[in-house]
Amino acid sequence: MSNNILRIGVIGVGRLGFHHARNIRRSEGAALTAVSDPFPEARERAAKEFGVQSYSSHADLIADPNVDALVIATPTQTHYEVLTAAIAGKKPIFCEKPITYTLEEAEKIVDSIEKDGVFLQVGFMRRFDPGHAAAKRMIEGGECGKPIYVHDCQRDPNGPPPAYVPQSGGIFVDMAIHDLDAARWLMGSEVVEIYAQGAVLKHEYLKELGDIDDGQILLTFASGALGMIEISRNANDVYDTRTEVVGLEKSVFVGQNQLTPYAIVGAGRIVVDMANWCLGRFKEGYELEMRAFIDAVRGNKPSPVTAYDGMVGLKLALAATESWRKAAPVKLTYRAGGSG
Amino acid sequence: MSNNILRIGVIGVGRLGFHHARNIRRSEGAALTAVSDPFPEARERAAKEFGVQSYSSHADLIADPNVDALVIATPTQTHYEVLTAAIAGKKPIFCEKPITYTLEEAEKIVDSIEKDGVFLQVGFMRRFDPGHAAAKRMIEGGECGKPIYVHDCQRDPNGPPPAYVPQSGGIFVDMAIHDLDAARWLMGSEVVEIYAQGAVLKHEYLKELGDIDDGQILLTFASGALGMIEISRNANDVYDTRTEVVGLEKSVFVGQNQLTPYAIVGAGRIVVDMANWCLGRFKEGYELEMRAFIDAVRGNKPSPVTAYDGMVGLKLALAATESWRKAAPVKLTYRAGGSG
Amino acid sequence: MSNNILRIGVIGVGRLGFHHARNIRRSEGAALTAVSDPFPEARERAAKEFGVQSYSSHADLIADPNVDALVIATPTQTHYEVLTAAIAGKKPIFCEKPITYTLEEAEKIVDSIEKDGVFLQVGFMRRFDPGHAAAKRMIEGGECGKPIYVHDCQRDPNGPPPAYVPQSGGIFVDMAIHDLDAARWLMGSEVVEIYAQGAVLKHEYLKELGDIDDGQILLTFASGALGMIEISRNANDVYDTRTEVVGLEKSVFVGQNQLTPYAIVGAGRIVVDMANWCLGRFKEGYELEMRAFIDAVRGNKPSPVTAYDGMVGLKLALAATESWRKAAPVKLTYRAGGSG
Amino acid sequence: MSNNILRIGVIGVGRLGFHHARNIRRSEGAALTAVSDPFPEARERAAKEFGVQSYSSHADLIADPNVDALVIATPTQTHYEVLTAAIAGKKPIFCEKPITYTLEEAEKIVDSIEKDGVFLQVGFMRRFDPGHAAAKRMIEGGECGKPIYVHDCQRDPNGPPPAYVPQSGGIFVDMAIHDLDAARWLMGSEVVEIYAQGAVLKHEYLKELGDIDDGQILLTFASGALGMIEISRNANDVYDTRTEVVGLEKSVFVGQNQLTPYAIVGAGRIVVDMANWCLGRFKEGYELEMRAFIDAVRGNKPSPVTAYDGMVGLKLALAATESWRKAAPVKLTYRAGGSG
Repeated sequence: MSNNILRIGVIGVGRLGFHHARNIRRSEGAALTAVSDPFPEARERAAKEFGVQSYSSHADLIADPNVDALVIATPTQTHYEVLTAAIAGKKPIFCEKPITYTLEEAEKIVDSIEKDGVFLQVGFMRRFDPGHAAAKRMIEGGECGKPIYVHDCQRDPNGPPPAYVPQSGGIFVDMAIHDLDAARWLMGSEVVEIYAQGAVLKHEYLKELGDIDDGQILLTFASGALGMIEISRNANDVYDTRTEVVGLEKSVFVGQNQLTPYAIVGAGRIVVDMANWCLGRFKEGYELEMRAFIDAVRGNKPSPVTAYDGMVGLKLALAATESWRKAAPVKLTYRAGGSG
Repeated sequence: MSNNILRIGVIGVGRLGFHHARNIRRSEGAALTAVSDPFPEARERAAKEFGVQSYSSHADLIADPNVDALVIATPTQTHYEVLTAAIAGKKPIFCEKPITYTLEEAEKIVDSIEKDGVFLQVGFMRRFDPGHAAAKRMIEGGECGKPIYVHDCQRDPNGPPPAYVPQSGGIFVDMAIHDLDAARWLMGSEVVEIYAQGAVLKHEYLKELGDIDDGQILLTFASGALGMIEISRNANDVYDTRTEVVGLEKSVFVGQNQLTPYAIVGAGRIVVDMANWCLGRFKEGYELEMRAFIDAVRGNKPSPVTAYDGMVGLKLALAATESWRKAAPVKLTYRAGGSG
Repeated sequence: MSNNILRIGVIGVGRLGFHHARNIRRSEGAALTAVSDPFPEARERAAKEFGVQSYSSHADLIADPNVDALVIATPTQTHYEVLTAAIAGKKPIFCEKPITYTLEEAEKIVDSIEKDGVFLQVGFMRRFDPGHAAAKRMIEGGECGKPIYVHDCQRDPNGPPPAYVPQSGGIFVDMAIHDLDAARWLMGSEVVEIYAQGAVLKHEYLKELGDIDDGQILLTFASGALGMIEISRNANDVYDTRTEVVGLEKSVFVGQNQLTPYAIVGAGRIVVDMANWCLGRFKEGYELEMRAFIDAVRGNKPSPVTAYDGMVGLKLALAATESWRKAAPVKLTYRAGGSG
Repeated sequence: MSNNILRIGVIGVGRLGFHHARNIRRSEGAALTAVSDPFPEARERAAKEFGVQSYSSHADLIADPNVDALVIATPTQTHYEVLTAAIAGKKPIFCEKPITYTLEEAEKIVDSIEKDGVFLQVGFMRRFDPGHAAAKRMIEGGECGKPIYVHDCQRDPNGPPPAYVPQSGGIFVDMAIHDLDAARWLMGSEVVEIYAQGAVLKHEYLKELGDIDDGQILLTFASGALGMIEISRNANDVYDTRTEVVGLEKSVFVGQNQLTPYAIVGAGRIVVDMANWCLGRFKEGYELEMRAFIDAVRGNKPSPVTAYDGMVGLKLALAATESWRKAAPVKLTYRAGGSG
């Protein structure tokens, strides 16, 4: 670090990487010093907007002595390769979800991280959303009593671009991974059985791409608790995510119905607006996860969302995919010991 | 009473009288036995709907031995005459607000009621609205601390029928009387000064009728507390009334934004409906005030909203009118002693 | 009918039958003329409250010439016997859900009703709740586009009395039958597959009674649509039911978060109340279903909720129970032709 | 500017100046390069936090060649002196409200600004709040019809520190200036008459300081429209501001009831949190007004909130104070011509 400012390079500056770059630029105690992207257009747009060094190759960015820490926001298929190089570079890493494309890759990354003692934080931004964070504090503080049920939905406003679908991992890996992570985190217990269904209900083009636009997942936790997750790409131009945990004494509900504190009244109706994309709903979550990354790295604190969390999230999403494909429940086991 | 059923006659079966008749018909322990109205159309509609005796003259209804108690819902100008006859008939009375058209008449009614010991309840239905009633309980129970401020508005969806305006007493007597009564009741203190303004902001036809469609009232209470009331006929097809009391420790807010527990979601918007007339917003209030009337008369209990309350409400409404007309504050004094 | 007043007898005046009796008493165009209950205490309480004839035997009530129509609110196990007697009596019937205890009985009742042309309405009161009814109108009117997904939950505030459990039919038959009926009614399509899970998460005493307090159900409709239902008895002293239908163009949400239009504000918090039992949340639904029964019978109109609807509701609830017990999806088929 | 980055110095780094400094630090296209404050503690805290040059004298900061633009957040009494020096320095200025302590000073500043062509933006951050901005767009776009009424309240969670009161200008200048500016801006018309009342309702210590904790203001606009403003310091630990404009066709409501998208449910109650200070409620407003300042200065665009706006806001606040003191309406006139 220079002058105690954490100099960060962002690998992959598509929509989300660019958003992270902007949040880094705005964060105290940190500076954006480089970006990389194999696509010249993305790379040059970011270099111009932020006035920083740009590379076509992530290897060059990782090797840049003016880069203290890395943010990885490339397509998921490349995560394993980029993460491996980043871990070898011994620089602290923030990596978007899913941590890797396959479970085998994820397990190798977990092992490398643990062996090499590299810092890695996975991009489960909901954990930093003020609503989810308040719910977690309340559950951990005992105000709810033992958590016994989780009810969650996530609805995208529309179908994904067709070109994105093959690299997305499917709706369970692309979307439900957030809900699955939030569920196990809030419940404080691992999922031991998953049953999932799904269908194409709106976007016919997904059929030939082998994906669906609606999924429903049932969960059983090691604690005996149950849960239910609905995911869809059918929400008619709103982005709607809600998470509830029922405890033995109280329930806590995290939602977001109204975006702007503003209502139009007339003709017997009240009209309010609502977030229409994920980056709008979780604006603060994205800012605060980057804030947490910077603070943890500067302060030598442990990662708030570990590689193991990233691996388990992927494992659950893949189990949901498998359950959907074979139309039967899938049981999950976890290797013994520590965080793994 | 026959078989312990309170037999009620309704004098005046226009919109509100008809509504009361229907509520009586639905009330246990009571029966609707007669209606009267000088207008044949109104009278016959009610007689047919409810299958009861009808009279053109209120005197005949008052004298009917099958009528134990009276509901008066005639135009305000007739209240004094009808009330005088009703009091002479020694039958318990429910009378719509305003209790009379002039303060002198109201004071005479209060005196008669007190002298003759006749039961009279005035139609301030807000006191029975579950929201307002909960607020009152909370304030009286001490949960709010001493009440120091009241903030209230009442917005009619539209302008009144021109023919109604001359008999309405003007916007302060017709509408604000409800807000003024609610304010003094919730605050538990009498109003000692009123300042009011007003204007025609939307319905030009009111100008030649000498009325306005927008009024703003400032209140000072004997306790030192302050208050603010907005009334209008400009609410663009919604009926919107809200009342807040700020106490030294907590505030309580009574409103009603959404009518049906139902929302339409799409295109980045959430749309809900809202009450669009007073009888919709205060549906339960109207039922429960009639329930309270029946219970009090059957149980020989005192009136929950006395003639004195009706007189003070009118006094405040007339003071607001006077303040508006002379563009200066008006002070109010109250005769010494008990309820009067 | 006497004087065009529908004279109704209520068979079974426990909690819900008593509530129906009160609603009948308040309904125009109808009169409560008799009640029956084998339990003297219940029977006498109702006879005294309403001042009507009482019988210990439902047969005597059915035979009473002063009873034009019947409301059946006895325990479910008795429904088949009582319904059979009522159908033989050729009097119009309102019957609480579940229509019978077994599917065989339900099918026989459907056949009898169709053969004898007797009027029968089943007590799915949600169809008359203003929120659900508005949603149905909106869907049928085409405003939502084709319905593709339904998301519903119903949470009871607490566990049931132990003595009630054995006669309840279990949580899916006792509670979920409402959600299942609402789902098929709102979606306008029959359910062709059900997968259900469940557990005891809070009320341990249910284990030895063979019941559960939490159920999660996945639905597949004939139209290809999907759905998800959560039911529980764990809602910590609130009664919370919400139903959403996602259409191709808009979504509609029916809920009820706040009961009284009233909020307490202070110390950085806003506190509102919430319905804490089913009869509170669906107060208007119960009134309006009885209103609909009276209107349909007096007007010789068809039943708005048929015996067939009652049979299908039970069939779905039993299929959910079966799926939960065998931990596998259950497919459903429907006999060809007309309403059956 | 260096590299097209606007280098900003903040004069006065108390609570609000420090907040502005932080927002500048986070803004793209801008850099915080200096702070000044006569109080060593405030100055050093900021210098350390932001790693920038610090001065005890504002004159030195204004003269600093590494400072392109100025933010003034000193106590109001010093505004005239600091503004005069800043205007002489010909650097673009962002100045907190009230623009000056007296109207004479404000008029001189307006004249200087216009004569010298210096950029000055006044800190009415509500104009940048997403809710208020949406309301303004809707009104200007004609969706509401002609605006005819404004209803506004602002409630501080608690009384001010006693030491702050003498320099605050009193509740109307300190608080109501925001509401008055919002009202004239949203209504698009100047205020021609003000009537104000006030009292100490909670914080007795304000009496000997000559201030009050509750004010109620009535407005008449040049357009004929009316308005009502309530301000208080009595809101029991919440910060509650709401603004409504009623138009001839629709109304628009700006409020903020719930802070976090999070609710606690149980025991028949729903509990949500609420902003408890102005910087929390208007977090985005403060960020966006600084964003607008930077963009306007870098882009050579006119000020979005002019010195004239600042002068009129003060004029209205002083008129409210005068009306309260003399218990009579105060009329306002505006000099002819353009913006002045």
